Amino acid sequence: MSITVVGSVAYDSIETPAGRRERCLGGAATYFSLAASFFTDVRVIAVVGEDFGPEQEAVFAARKIDTRGIEHTAGKSFFWEGSYLENLNEAQTRNTELNVFASFEPKIPDPYRDSEFLFLANIDPVLQRRVREAMSQVKLVAGDTMNYWIKDHRPALLEVLKGLDVLLINDTEARMLAGNNNLVQAARAVRALGPRALVVKHGEYGATLFRDSDANDQNAESTFKAPALPLEQVIDPTGAGDSFAGGFFGYLASQEKLTPAAWRRAMFYGSVMGSFACERFGTERLQQLSRAEIDTRFNHFRELTHLD
Amino acid sequence: MSITVVGSVAYDSIETPAGRRERCLGGAATYFSLAASFFTDVRVIAVVGEDFGPEQEAVFAARKIDTRGIEHTAGKSFFWEGSYLENLNEAQTRNTELNVFASFEPKIPDPYRDSEFLFLANIDPVLQRRVREAMSQVKLVAGDTMNYWIKDHRPALLEVLKGLDVLLINDTEARMLAGNNNLVQAARAVRALGPRALVVKHGEYGATLFRDSDANDQNAESTFKAPALPLEQVIDPTGAGDSFAGGFFGYLASQEKLTPAAWRRAMFYGSVMGSFACERFGTERLQQLSRAEIDTRFNHFRELTHLD
Repeated sequence: MSITVVGSVAYDSIETPAGRRERCLGGAATYFSLAASFFTDVRVIAVVGEDFGPEQEAVFAARKIDTRGIEHTAGKSFFWEGSYLENLNEAQTRNTELNVFASFEPKIPDPYRDSEFLFLANIDPVLQRRVREAMSQVKLVAGDTMNYWIKDHRPALLEVLKGLDVLLINDTEARMLAGNNNLVQAARAVRALGPRALVVKHGEYGATLFRDSDANDQNAESTFKAPALPLEQVIDPTGAGDSFAGGFFGYLASQEKLTPAAWRRAMFYGSVMGSFACERFGTERLQQLSRAEIDTRFNHFRELTHLD
Repeated sequence: MSITVVGSVAYDSIETPAGRRERCLGGAATYFSLAASFFTDVRVIAVVGEDFGPEQEAVFAARKIDTRGIEHTAGKSFFWEGSYLENLNEAQTRNTELNVFASFEPKIPDPYRDSEFLFLANIDPVLQRRVREAMSQVKLVAGDTMNYWIKDHRPALLEVLKGLDVLLINDTEARMLAGNNNLVQAARAVRALGPRALVVKHGEYGATLFRDSDANDQNAESTFKAPALPLEQVIDPTGAGDSFAGGFFGYLASQEKLTPAAWRRAMFYGSVMGSFACERFGTERLQQLSRAEIDTRFNHFRELTHLD
């Protein structure tokens, strides 16, 4: 089943201990759709400026991603500059230029309207909600957000959460959203706001899925942990979270039935895609990836965590 | 097979968000031996003062721990006071009184000398080495250390590491010991100092085992990750690391052969015992634990991480 994703397509200038890159193709929707495209059909809704040309278009085309929902307007694309020199786990933003993103009004192409899966990447919750409402036919909606929206746009964000089936955020965001430092309690509080399932990403320590138990389970909640791959060198962590979301949600969308086993495997595929994203700058690694490499790494994750 | 452990038997005054306890029985050797006692015979080498009486002795006796190596001397036992009010993952030390520990000279009772497993808990590396040399017949030696010894007693610590088969430390300590922030590279550097196996504990994110691969494996290294249990309430994290070590090493000592599967299961049992330790103040939970509860939680850890 196909996924429609709405989010940023952008340029990033990135500095890490491994080096520096100017104006790589980036943005949450870019990382998400590249990662998800290994599992299912993906359709993007975004806005770009005149600096987005055939070369960038070709990155999406190579992965057969539908870009009819990427609006081209006058001006420059969203631009972000950040550094990981101090901390590989958290970017320091040096510069953000919204550019054409400042007046982004997501438009949903008609052919996208039969998508059964919807991903609301990290953008203004007002826009997330608008897309959610316009795509009311979808079977499963997942979304992301960040500290800025949690702190300063809480009412709008709370409206979005009511319409989400799955929320993917990191530890700090989960604790901030719940106002509770204990992760188990925070997860319960966040899920009470709407999403039946919550994925909390722990960076180099993997991720935890909190969701409703299945009917035949005695516990009200079920929890599952996916590891992160111990990486010898993290070249560039930009987009790792969005790539996790792409692998996770892409795998779910590829399944006939969302069994408990499918949710667990989705967590592994999320972690697998996040690990690849860190291996090179920008989207380089995702662009040069094969499904065989993904499955080899999936099996490696199994060996890393399974007793037998 | 039996384990001899050398380390502190102490009193702790502890403050956490859940409350305060004055002068609980504590110390690394206490937590370690209680945890390990569920898997194998344990013998303790330590020193205590006149404040250690029949009530404390009974805690060890109830778990059939051999205390003939606990020396009683004039003065007061080692005392530590710490707070977790600011951070449940890291204690703030308010007071340390070495007392009788200041002149501790470990003496090994003759009946301990046939122990095949030796655990050197976190004490002065000069003492660790002395015990290691006096117990040269052991099959497997594991040890712990801390930032203080890494920073200010490195030459003595490096001598200890040469004689260790397994080192158990936390992330910060591994990075500090290796002088390398990347955990995979740090683990390799630490293992080059002596221990064939390294367990890095990540607190609420579990632990990773780095060890030599088995002969039939193509990779030079093998890595295994055990989760930590997502706890709804951490009452008191004191001793969680020592309890991990006790479960881990206790399980290894109970096995006829140290197969790859045994190492993996030992990681789970370590994490299981660490999770119990946090559930009540001091050693309360370890004192009131059954093997059946341990195995139930072990199975819960499996469900938390296994795909099928």
